[in-house]
Amino acid sequence: MKKILIDCDPGIDDALAITLAHGSAELEILGITTVGGNVSLPKTTANALRLREFLGFPEVPVVPGSPGALLRPTIDAAEVHGDSGLGETRLPPPTLPPADGHAVDFIIDTLASAPGEISLVAIGPLTNIALAVRKEPRLVEWAREFVILGGSYTRGNFSPAAEFNIAADPEAAAIVFSAGWTVTMIGLDVSRTALATMAVVDRMREMGRLGSDLLVPCAEFYGMVTASDGPAIHDACAIAYLIDPTLIEIQQAVVQVETMGRFTSGMTVVDFHLGDRAPNALVGTSIDTGRFWDLMLGTYAQVAATIA
Amino acid sequence: MKKILIDCDPGIDDALAITLAHGSAELEILGITTVGGNVSLPKTTANALRLREFLGFPEVPVVPGSPGALLRPTIDAAEVHGDSGLGETRLPPPTLPPADGHAVDFIIDTLASAPGEISLVAIGPLTNIALAVRKEPRLVEWAREFVILGGSYTRGNFSPAAEFNIAADPEAAAIVFSAGWTVTMIGLDVSRTALATMAVVDRMREMGRLGSDLLVPCAEFYGMVTASDGPAIHDACAIAYLIDPTLIEIQQAVVQVETMGRFTSGMTVVDFHLGDRAPNALVGTSIDTGRFWDLMLGTYAQVAATIA
Amino acid sequence: MKKILIDCDPGIDDALAITLAHGSAELEILGITTVGGNVSLPKTTANALRLREFLGFPEVPVVPGSPGALLRPTIDAAEVHGDSGLGETRLPPPTLPPADGHAVDFIIDTLASAPGEISLVAIGPLTNIALAVRKEPRLVEWAREFVILGGSYTRGNFSPAAEFNIAADPEAAAIVFSAGWTVTMIGLDVSRTALATMAVVDRMREMGRLGSDLLVPCAEFYGMVTASDGPAIHDACAIAYLIDPTLIEIQQAVVQVETMGRFTSGMTVVDFHLGDRAPNALVGTSIDTGRFWDLMLGTYAQVAATIA
Amino acid sequence: MKKILIDCDPGIDDALAITLAHGSAELEILGITTVGGNVSLPKTTANALRLREFLGFPEVPVVPGSPGALLRPTIDAAEVHGDSGLGETRLPPPTLPPADGHAVDFIIDTLASAPGEISLVAIGPLTNIALAVRKEPRLVEWAREFVILGGSYTRGNFSPAAEFNIAADPEAAAIVFSAGWTVTMIGLDVSRTALATMAVVDRMREMGRLGSDLLVPCAEFYGMVTASDGPAIHDACAIAYLIDPTLIEIQQAVVQVETMGRFTSGMTVVDFHLGDRAPNALVGTSIDTGRFWDLMLGTYAQVAATIA
Repeated sequence: MKKILIDCDPGIDDALAITLAHGSAELEILGITTVGGNVSLPKTTANALRLREFLGFPEVPVVPGSPGALLRPTIDAAEVHGDSGLGETRLPPPTLPPADGHAVDFIIDTLASAPGEISLVAIGPLTNIALAVRKEPRLVEWAREFVILGGSYTRGNFSPAAEFNIAADPEAAAIVFSAGWTVTMIGLDVSRTALATMAVVDRMREMGRLGSDLLVPCAEFYGMVTASDGPAIHDACAIAYLIDPTLIEIQQAVVQVETMGRFTSGMTVVDFHLGDRAPNALVGTSIDTGRFWDLMLGTYAQVAATIA
Repeated sequence: MKKILIDCDPGIDDALAITLAHGSAELEILGITTVGGNVSLPKTTANALRLREFLGFPEVPVVPGSPGALLRPTIDAAEVHGDSGLGETRLPPPTLPPADGHAVDFIIDTLASAPGEISLVAIGPLTNIALAVRKEPRLVEWAREFVILGGSYTRGNFSPAAEFNIAADPEAAAIVFSAGWTVTMIGLDVSRTALATMAVVDRMREMGRLGSDLLVPCAEFYGMVTASDGPAIHDACAIAYLIDPTLIEIQQAVVQVETMGRFTSGMTVVDFHLGDRAPNALVGTSIDTGRFWDLMLGTYAQVAATIA
Repeated sequence: MKKILIDCDPGIDDALAITLAHGSAELEILGITTVGGNVSLPKTTANALRLREFLGFPEVPVVPGSPGALLRPTIDAAEVHGDSGLGETRLPPPTLPPADGHAVDFIIDTLASAPGEISLVAIGPLTNIALAVRKEPRLVEWAREFVILGGSYTRGNFSPAAEFNIAADPEAAAIVFSAGWTVTMIGLDVSRTALATMAVVDRMREMGRLGSDLLVPCAEFYGMVTASDGPAIHDACAIAYLIDPTLIEIQQAVVQVETMGRFTSGMTVVDFHLGDRAPNALVGTSIDTGRFWDLMLGTYAQVAATIA
Repeated sequence: MKKILIDCDPGIDDALAITLAHGSAELEILGITTVGGNVSLPKTTANALRLREFLGFPEVPVVPGSPGALLRPTIDAAEVHGDSGLGETRLPPPTLPPADGHAVDFIIDTLASAPGEISLVAIGPLTNIALAVRKEPRLVEWAREFVILGGSYTRGNFSPAAEFNIAADPEAAAIVFSAGWTVTMIGLDVSRTALATMAVVDRMREMGRLGSDLLVPCAEFYGMVTASDGPAIHDACAIAYLIDPTLIEIQQAVVQVETMGRFTSGMTVVDFHLGDRAPNALVGTSIDTGRFWDLMLGTYAQVAATIA
């Protein structure tokens, strides 16, 4: 069983990713840290708390972190995720508060407590992770692995050049990619191919309250605004990779984050030709969508059975 | 019959493009201007002169232009095109000199002589075109159409972000794309799919001296250094579009050239979502490769028949 | 007698500079080329024509050039120079037209006609000069010397970092400073100390029509908007240097023009510590204001005597 | 008595500043946090510890912070401060360790403990302060005032455009200047005029071990490498301002830090023309050098009397 710490900004696809992580027998969630991103920090934190109680893992700490980017004005994606960040889902308000302290310290302390044992996964802007590696450079040695959902080596979604999570804090991403560890980057090139088709949504409809109150509203709201063939469930791809790395093909690369471009800020410039450079990233290039949806729906069905 | 003026930096694929333009019954070449690019200006000019005599159109002026980029240090692609710029081809040295004057003035004067009638096509760095539109802003109205081979809306070849012709002079490209006309951009997204396969090269072998001295050495040299499934014949795609626009699907876009990025300079940032912006470009998105090679090989066969 | 070619954007201080150049027994004006800058190109050209006739040198060609910057949106300084560009002066409209052709070609052809003999002085944005050196790189060898009014090594006037003439076309300035010649840069550090005080303006009042119709309105209009201790007569400093280089102390430097800054575009970054680098500029560091005004007023008095 | 927290990178002028702060009856040092800068973090921390024991305030915590800049490769100024960072001074090695914890948390916790009461002064690169305000945005409200030694509104010392402390971490400085508080910026424009002349150094010679082991070696080493008329004692100016704000004239300004320039990164772009913008800085424009040295030497004499 792999121990993971999730840094996130729920966010519809974050919700679907957290549900997957919670339901997987392969993963143990040690904590959830939040960051401003898809919507504001108070909302991403509230959403993490709502998900924790709805899904039923109240013992896992939720720790809020950075409200906005290191240098840039805040951008958000409320037009994609709805004003609340969770579209038309029907999760009750949380009854339990977040943990004390700051996400940055929680990340550092948690990984320090078991060096080499905990996987860190970031599915929002990388502000918390950047602050953490700058405050404690040994973090990069302590993480068992570090996986992000973000970036693209072809085209972006926030702009033609940049994916949202990276564009939301390019300097943080630049810090994170140059911190000395290997970043496993699952980006749009992969996640755009993992679409929640009608057939997928129909399966979700059969999943009781999990389906009616969370999964289906997520997929339908997301689908309305982002896709024609069904929405891409971006963040879940990063969790799926943690559960079963054979789902996604990866390739070594040197990734540099553009912070100075006029039209390209936040672009992940991915060079697969290493030359004599050491790679700083493993970049996802394709996903086995059949096995991905088998994993997703199988796991969701198990979670559904636990929710009255 | 469409009158065209070709600005180029021969260059192997330039040679294949010029051969196509010369052989086409649809096109009349009014002049060839040269620019430093794949190799230095003296070499691109000499190559244009050699091609002119070998192919047999000595009455068409060849006019040299800019040796290097507006602001940047010169880069070249000699590793792709060979030291001479024409790989292992066997064209005799030229016997006739280039025309007097400068490419910039030749472009301006030629288009001024027949406003609305002449198509301008640029298949090298855009330095000459940029200087021309800045010296004579009315050029953008005088051109019947303006087509380039350059750029990419996914990945580059000079860098992960930038295609060679744009990367060689990003400021010139920025000038050209913002000059007030509609740029038809045939980029790597299209040209990378038009590969000279073994079957294509076998057809070239049957084309007498044109095949043995020019086409086959071009394809083989280029193939050795650039491709596995056969080389992409980039520049010829732009000429093919001029002959038969139905070969290439195009889409309206706003294209901005990155000049300030640390890792992205020379990238063509292509936004297909116009919003309320007027498009400044028609961007090629796919090519009918079957019909493209039919056109290429049919035209080459006709040229071959004229060369003793 | 030094032969000079003046590239300018009149402009109040351009008018005072041209009057000085015309009146000086040391200088022979071979031509005046115009550029968009302080006001639009049609106005700077019209103003050059008006000055030519009012001052009485109709045989000198006035040749219009570039309307705007190479890459950037046009900025102007109409708030400093008035809507016409010449404040409240009372010069009659011109009766003679500008010369045919383009400033870029006029500059190239004029300097080509007497290599090593003609001083080139630019007192507006450097667009024409940049286009000229890129079209004809030998220009940098043909110029006897090249003097600009522009830049600063401390603070700007268009922005805290940048002086107007450079900020109006930073890429042009970058081209010009890296073209391979030595640029004599007379910047704000010098020109800001050459103020037209009350005593100076009083002397101008005694100069008949030259005073009443040109000099005094220039100084007063300029003074109203730009200065407390009297206005700085920027452009005239560059002409004064051509007449008598001993007026201005200069120092060797490496000057680089910032084109990529967010807040510093158009700044001339002046490094007086050459290290092992060859200087590309001679930068003015101080002016003998007493002798400067003696030269100015003495010359103006002679011009005044020629105007009925 | 003003409570202060000093973030520093000793550094010769840091040592002279800390000595001033320690000796002043107006100031109470609550803590010293260190940052990599003039020399590496282990050395700046060791130097702070050595100073603490030599000067005799072992009860004040010294807390190490960030080893290098947020995004950029580390630069240092060892050529100015000597390999150890304290030139040829003769301070014994420290016997007491630094405090546990990280500078960022110490800064946050200390200011949180007495909102509105503690002055924060930063005399090195701004990495710690940037991390602190991003981790705890309320810091900007808790600080009684925030004073830095850094920047320039004319010319730099690290480059023609940038002062060392800002150039060492431009992104950190950009964060700090845009954090929502008013930064009192004492920069080179002020500090360059506060020179330790021969007469000053002669006074230092009379100050027993403080003079012979710290002050004179500092002034002489610094003088050898940085100045002709005696070295500028930069950091001490910021402490002097805290003791007696009337020493330095200040002016409201909007200060923006250039992070994107090719030649200007780390420049503080200081606009004194506010227009309708709220100022984010009070910028020092001149210092009363006579009173400054009276304060310095008077305070140093008192410290000298306490050191056996």
